[in-house]
Amino acid sequence: MEKRSKYEKPLRIPFGEMRQTFYDILRQRGFSDEDAALSARLFTETSCDGVYSHGLNRFPRYIGDIDQGYIDVQAEPQLIARNGVMEQWDGGLGPGNLNAYRSMERAVAIARENGMGCVALRNTNHWMRGGTYGWQAADAGCQAMLWSNTTGLMPPWGGIEPTIGNNPMILALPRAGGHVVLDFAQSMYSFGKLSIHSKSGEPLPYVGGYDEDGNLTKDASAIEKSIRPLPAGLWKGSGLAIMLDLFATTLSGGNSTMEISQQEHEHGLSQVFIAIESSSGRRAIVDDIIEHLHSTRPVDTRKEVRYPGERTLEVRTENMASGIPVDQQIWEQVCRL
Amino acid sequence: MEKRSKYEKPLRIPFGEMRQTFYDILRQRGFSDEDAALSARLFTETSCDGVYSHGLNRFPRYIGDIDQGYIDVQAEPQLIARNGVMEQWDGGLGPGNLNAYRSMERAVAIARENGMGCVALRNTNHWMRGGTYGWQAADAGCQAMLWSNTTGLMPPWGGIEPTIGNNPMILALPRAGGHVVLDFAQSMYSFGKLSIHSKSGEPLPYVGGYDEDGNLTKDASAIEKSIRPLPAGLWKGSGLAIMLDLFATTLSGGNSTMEISQQEHEHGLSQVFIAIESSSGRRAIVDDIIEHLHSTRPVDTRKEVRYPGERTLEVRTENMASGIPVDQQIWEQVCRL
Repeated sequence: MEKRSKYEKPLRIPFGEMRQTFYDILRQRGFSDEDAALSARLFTETSCDGVYSHGLNRFPRYIGDIDQGYIDVQAEPQLIARNGVMEQWDGGLGPGNLNAYRSMERAVAIARENGMGCVALRNTNHWMRGGTYGWQAADAGCQAMLWSNTTGLMPPWGGIEPTIGNNPMILALPRAGGHVVLDFAQSMYSFGKLSIHSKSGEPLPYVGGYDEDGNLTKDASAIEKSIRPLPAGLWKGSGLAIMLDLFATTLSGGNSTMEISQQEHEHGLSQVFIAIESSSGRRAIVDDIIEHLHSTRPVDTRKEVRYPGERTLEVRTENMASGIPVDQQIWEQVCRL
Repeated sequence: MEKRSKYEKPLRIPFGEMRQTFYDILRQRGFSDEDAALSARLFTETSCDGVYSHGLNRFPRYIGDIDQGYIDVQAEPQLIARNGVMEQWDGGLGPGNLNAYRSMERAVAIARENGMGCVALRNTNHWMRGGTYGWQAADAGCQAMLWSNTTGLMPPWGGIEPTIGNNPMILALPRAGGHVVLDFAQSMYSFGKLSIHSKSGEPLPYVGGYDEDGNLTKDASAIEKSIRPLPAGLWKGSGLAIMLDLFATTLSGGNSTMEISQQEHEHGLSQVFIAIESSSGRRAIVDDIIEHLHSTRPVDTRKEVRYPGERTLEVRTENMASGIPVDQQIWEQVCRL
């Protein structure tokens, strides 16, 4: 198949068509009607929000994991233990996005009754876009903090072997004019981003890791080779990654990055979902802070300073109106699944 | 006063003598016996743990803030509102370290009964070393997450004016062999660290900000001049700083960084203290993860990879045995207060 030139208009698929396509495939894989509809919606929303790497582009791998038995489509999360507003759930190696969605739903329900709720989830799978569950909590009127561990793919600060995860963390806060949602992994760049730069040959905007000789580099392919991506904030991102893994593992009773890394295939992750009821507190200040950010003098006078999640909302609006841009090759691959 | 050569042995003050010195000064400033004892202990422990900038070295400024009326030594935190396990307290502009200690104490008490507890504190003052309250929670058998906003001292990513705080965050986890405690601000380097390098002229180990021409630099004095320190992890640390301020402000009902920055003097901060009961869950894995970190191949074969807080414990042990090293000039200044 011919590669489209960057000057050619991308193929755009309407939201409804993409969701229906996912739904049909998931039903064929044995998902219940409800589960297929939810998973299809979450995947479509992720691409619609511009996080293509974890939407459409990730879908073939999700199906592959199902076909290879790493994801059990019949599994439902089970409550293991409860201590006040803290609950431990076992994901039964079910679909990571459905487990995460239901865990956040449960954390929100606890928060509505008790001000705050926490679900620690073990034996789950990759949650796809973590930001999804931040938007979900904010839609339900809650502030949220959530994170996942991953397999080892980054050396700790001072180390040379990729023994810690990049453990994505999400903070979300509801706002009538558009939620504020920060979704960040603890490596400076994700492997998805490295791969894009490695293919195009374009250097990274900032140093992203070490080459095999131990020199800091903007060369993405050199970092893919060394498996030494830089933690975001150097020792700080490394420390935060270690803490988030310790919290997820101890609270859920699940696998740590160390144990996940011993498997051949990344599965059986541990995650934490915290929801905080936020209808009380000081709400009007949120818009004032956003406005203050927007009025800050920018480095580049053509680019306003943005709040976390602002671009997501812009892309969503555009893609809802004009269709979701897709890589034609991947779209056709999915249509054949 | 002569400056000591770096080859000369530093003056070391025994823990008990330093604490008594602080105690006597605080009693003279009107602290109750209990408050003076607690504040003196926290300041001494901070220096004993090697965080000299926020222990002895910060003490004269603490007393200065009391003498200028920014800190009300009579104030006691007041409960404003309760929603289940979430509580809002007003610090009454009391001593920041005492307010923070009591907030964490209260969060721990809520967590003991409900699995998890949160205190959002407003109208407080600088908490000195944030890690203190992480160690405190871990000593009480709880995991903890806590953070503070600050005055604006760092530009948001894409901005040029110092409109966001470096909002320190602490994560702590109890462990019999030594707690795991991460204490990190959202700027790559603190202004304390910049000042040390600026005075010595030694370049920073990694780029720490922009000079006045907008170039990334390791020159600490250039960063002090531009007030453009780099957020840790670039856009990530900037986003996290913004979220932590939004959370602290909305949950506590207190001042945001924006409002604190409008004052002439940094006071009236907002903070969040979350404690999680952690006697259940998976405890033995913590030592395994630490051991795994220690066994990781290091970049420098003479330096083992460390876990967050490991060095603190080593320094504490040494300083308890040999006395706390002090800058003689500052020590004498404090003795004259």
